[in-house]
Amino acid sequence: MNNGILFVLSAPSGGGKSTILKRVMADLPGLVFSVSHTTRPPRPGEEDGRDYHFVSLHDFLDIRSSGESGFLEWAEVHGNLYGTSRKEVERHLGSGLDVILDIDVQGARQVQENFSPVSIFIAPPSIEELESRLRKRGTENEKDLEVRLENAKKELSCSGRYDYLIVNDELQEAVDSLRSIIIAERCRGRRTPAGYPAEQEF
Amino acid sequence: MNNGILFVLSAPSGGGKSTILKRVMADLPGLVFSVSHTTRPPRPGEEDGRDYHFVSLHDFLDIRSSGESGFLEWAEVHGNLYGTSRKEVERHLGSGLDVILDIDVQGARQVQENFSPVSIFIAPPSIEELESRLRKRGTENEKDLEVRLENAKKELSCSGRYDYLIVNDELQEAVDSLRSIIIAERCRGRRTPAGYPAEQEF
Repeated sequence: MNNGILFVLSAPSGGGKSTILKRVMADLPGLVFSVSHTTRPPRPGEEDGRDYHFVSLHDFLDIRSSGESGFLEWAEVHGNLYGTSRKEVERHLGSGLDVILDIDVQGARQVQENFSPVSIFIAPPSIEELESRLRKRGTENEKDLEVRLENAKKELSCSGRYDYLIVNDELQEAVDSLRSIIIAERCRGRRTPAGYPAEQEF
Repeated sequence: MNNGILFVLSAPSGGGKSTILKRVMADLPGLVFSVSHTTRPPRPGEEDGRDYHFVSLHDFLDIRSSGESGFLEWAEVHGNLYGTSRKEVERHLGSGLDVILDIDVQGARQVQENFSPVSIFIAPPSIEELESRLRKRGTENEKDLEVRLENAKKELSCSGRYDYLIVNDELQEAVDSLRSIIIAERCRGRRTPAGYPAEQEF
């Protein structure tokens, strides 16, 4: 059996990542979303085990210190810790499923250094558009919003490190792009069907 | 303006390539098909300038000997000569259009050696299935069919040289795969939107 493909997806908040990812997952079999651990408290509507594994700081640090059996990557974002369980990811990949990690630029860098993921960055069409989207969402106060914007600028500056860049200008087009990238990667020369003749010269 | 992307598509006859390509082209703007030159006589329904530029052997050799302004690649297949006009391809790419070349394994190798195309191989699920498809088509006599099958085996043995492999098991799925590869390649890190901040360290 072939191993699954590891996808890493990053986007500044307000980039539309969650919506895009949800639509693609609903449409594409064989792809699983790796649920991250976080020390951040759940937001309204978020569910433990579905959106995140919500854990205490103590438990998070415990997992983090357990090395190989601990986190594939971890990062601090806006004062909270986030991490991806190595065991969960390896189990899915080993059973032939593709895994998608929704992680920030720092976490992505750790995964890129230690594994060979397919990395995808979802960007807003411009900083101005991102600001306007965050203001419309209205979940942050002015100070938090400024922190997010500063962070988004830093993240955007790293988009060149990713294999693919999706500019989220029109939602349905961005959904189609992410879906296409996953299907295309599945056609990459990894899997040669059995029973093909050995290479011959012309 | 960005240059377009050069795609190279190969498949043994009976692989379903023409049908797949037609459907994808009908659906995807910004992609042009480069019409090859050939010394082979037109088949019923084929149109000069649309399916091929049908030329005499003399004219073909003339173009071939004109070097840089001649063919991007050329090959002999089943006793006929086929070639791709360099000028036509460069004109399209320069105007920002993506170009797709429908060429055989030998031609593809020439393009791969001299340019950096995105290469795609469309394969039948098995040799047996290919044979059954060629027999159903019924346009060849037994001897021609055997030549085509031998050639197909050689071509299949080269599928590992291509960036992508599409196994044409179910037509609509194969169409979706080719379309996805083109969309995905358009998201590859070639084009960074203007106005992004320069890379910063975290």
